[in-house]
Amino acid sequence: MPDLAEGQPTPIVLAAMGSFHIGGREIEITGKPVREVALNPGRAATRIDPNGRYQVEQMYVQYFVPEPRRGQLPLLLWHGGGLTGVTYETTPDGREGWLNWFVRQGWAVYNSDAVERGRSGFAPPEVFTGDALFLPKKNGFERFRIGDGVGSYDDDPSKRRVLSGNLFPADAYDQFCRQIVPRWTSTDPAITAAYLALLEKVGPSVVLIHSQSGQFGTTVAQARPDLVKALVLVEPAGFPVTEDLGALARVPMLAVYGDFIAEDARWPEIRAKGEAFLARVRAAGGRADVLDLPQAGIHGNSHMLMMDRNNTAIAELIQSWLAGLGLWR
Amino acid sequence: MPDLAEGQPTPIVLAAMGSFHIGGREIEITGKPVREVALNPGRAATRIDPNGRYQVEQMYVQYFVPEPRRGQLPLLLWHGGGLTGVTYETTPDGREGWLNWFVRQGWAVYNSDAVERGRSGFAPPEVFTGDALFLPKKNGFERFRIGDGVGSYDDDPSKRRVLSGNLFPADAYDQFCRQIVPRWTSTDPAITAAYLALLEKVGPSVVLIHSQSGQFGTTVAQARPDLVKALVLVEPAGFPVTEDLGALARVPMLAVYGDFIAEDARWPEIRAKGEAFLARVRAAGGRADVLDLPQAGIHGNSHMLMMDRNNTAIAELIQSWLAGLGLWR
Repeated sequence: MPDLAEGQPTPIVLAAMGSFHIGGREIEITGKPVREVALNPGRAATRIDPNGRYQVEQMYVQYFVPEPRRGQLPLLLWHGGGLTGVTYETTPDGREGWLNWFVRQGWAVYNSDAVERGRSGFAPPEVFTGDALFLPKKNGFERFRIGDGVGSYDDDPSKRRVLSGNLFPADAYDQFCRQIVPRWTSTDPAITAAYLALLEKVGPSVVLIHSQSGQFGTTVAQARPDLVKALVLVEPAGFPVTEDLGALARVPMLAVYGDFIAEDARWPEIRAKGEAFLARVRAAGGRADVLDLPQAGIHGNSHMLMMDRNNTAIAELIQSWLAGLGLWR
Repeated sequence: MPDLAEGQPTPIVLAAMGSFHIGGREIEITGKPVREVALNPGRAATRIDPNGRYQVEQMYVQYFVPEPRRGQLPLLLWHGGGLTGVTYETTPDGREGWLNWFVRQGWAVYNSDAVERGRSGFAPPEVFTGDALFLPKKNGFERFRIGDGVGSYDDDPSKRRVLSGNLFPADAYDQFCRQIVPRWTSTDPAITAAYLALLEKVGPSVVLIHSQSGQFGTTVAQARPDLVKALVLVEPAGFPVTEDLGALARVPMLAVYGDFIAEDARWPEIRAKGEAFLARVRAAGGRADVLDLPQAGIHGNSHMLMMDRNNTAIAELIQSWLAGLGLWR
């Protein structure tokens, strides 16, 4: 277990903090039998009529507005697949995450859980087709460039093969697994709709995505370039399917890539798709920068950059890029 | 939609904020076929081997440590059934909730999502027996003493029959429904174990429960009266099954009840069970106080007291009781 991060360097001063749910829709379920359900074993049953309207596909958002503000726009943090906004909170080994770091730097941060994950809840089987996907512990270790590929995970932590020089806190990998949540594979349209609703509520923002959310960030920016003023793509794994990237050319973007990509089983292809996407944005007249960390002399980063031991150094590079756009002063 | 609560009265100063997951266990799943899964529709499939170890039944906890501190112990907020820690955050109509209020009063607050809810994630079907329970929108309206009983809910908000004088922000009821999450009915032991693990990590604390968590708060206090220094039972709906309440007699407790109970279909029985439990604690030599809000001249509270329009007035009464124990100075 990590220690509680109570020994934080200086106080965080917030003009406001709070949360809300946004988006989603109502559905109606009919024709089901009324049931007597013991909500807790051994207790009296309660009569439950499952028929009626349900709220589904909403999204949870928690916000922290610091004082004073130096970020010129809200900063929206969108997590990757199988995870929640916890991605950006305390790291698995108990250090401060990017949420705290950006708040301390004066950004109003909005941290959300994608539709069907975490505090967003999930809809009845009538809405989400297919089953939730559960992944065993080995999956992330072998897929997120923490371990040395397939077979590197072992149930015995002392026998796991960590990539040499890896900066992920591998001794806290078991703790990291506690934040992994099930996901459906059929919910992309609902997630995209909720992120659009969030931007419409919050207004012009900087969007920072990770991994799976690449497709959500780029799709939403393509739809509303007036609301996405900058897009930070942290190891994006998905992109919009559209051919016309004209709207995206209005949104400055930065892609950030960690280490160990060339030797990985999957990442050379994912990155090649990303670079091809960025080239198309540039061809359409847009700005699409790449921060290749090893090329910049920063070695050892896994796919979970925001949890790696040098997480604040990477956040600083991202913020410098945003400062160059006049979005942090 | 509520406004963002950005117009909060004074800054919140935090010595620390962060989150962690605690508790749970590992299970092993074997004998399943390896599958090719398209994690996102239209994308290339990924090879997923579902066999191996899984982390299950952990619990998410978010903490806020204010500066200066006036609460003499950590304050743990445990939510009710079908909900998450969002219960204590911003109210559905956009006011500050009990989380902010207690933090502003100098309490180090630990707000958690019970096992299988919210950011705690949920386990594969091999672990949780039965299906998740989904409740239609009408259920909470009719069951939480917001509407005037069965039949009071209508899909058209203007046609809903709200209890006369009710202080729940009924015009934000649709927004409230966005925070309702599915629940299993077979997870009580796992939830109890996770709350015990939390107390063992945080140390002696004040525990404030709501509704379903009555059984978790009282069961945990019975097991570890050395760690639960005071127990605030906000409309408790469950209690420990044990006959021997000797350990609980060491834990001062306060039960808080709102309005409209006598006329409700279910609450007279639930409250009678609660009062019988409190009488048994007293008979065992314990202190078990009751704050009956209507008797105290405070009328109109629903089951969701922490969201009602007078939510901070009720929090003040709870804090006064804690101050009387020397736990707030």
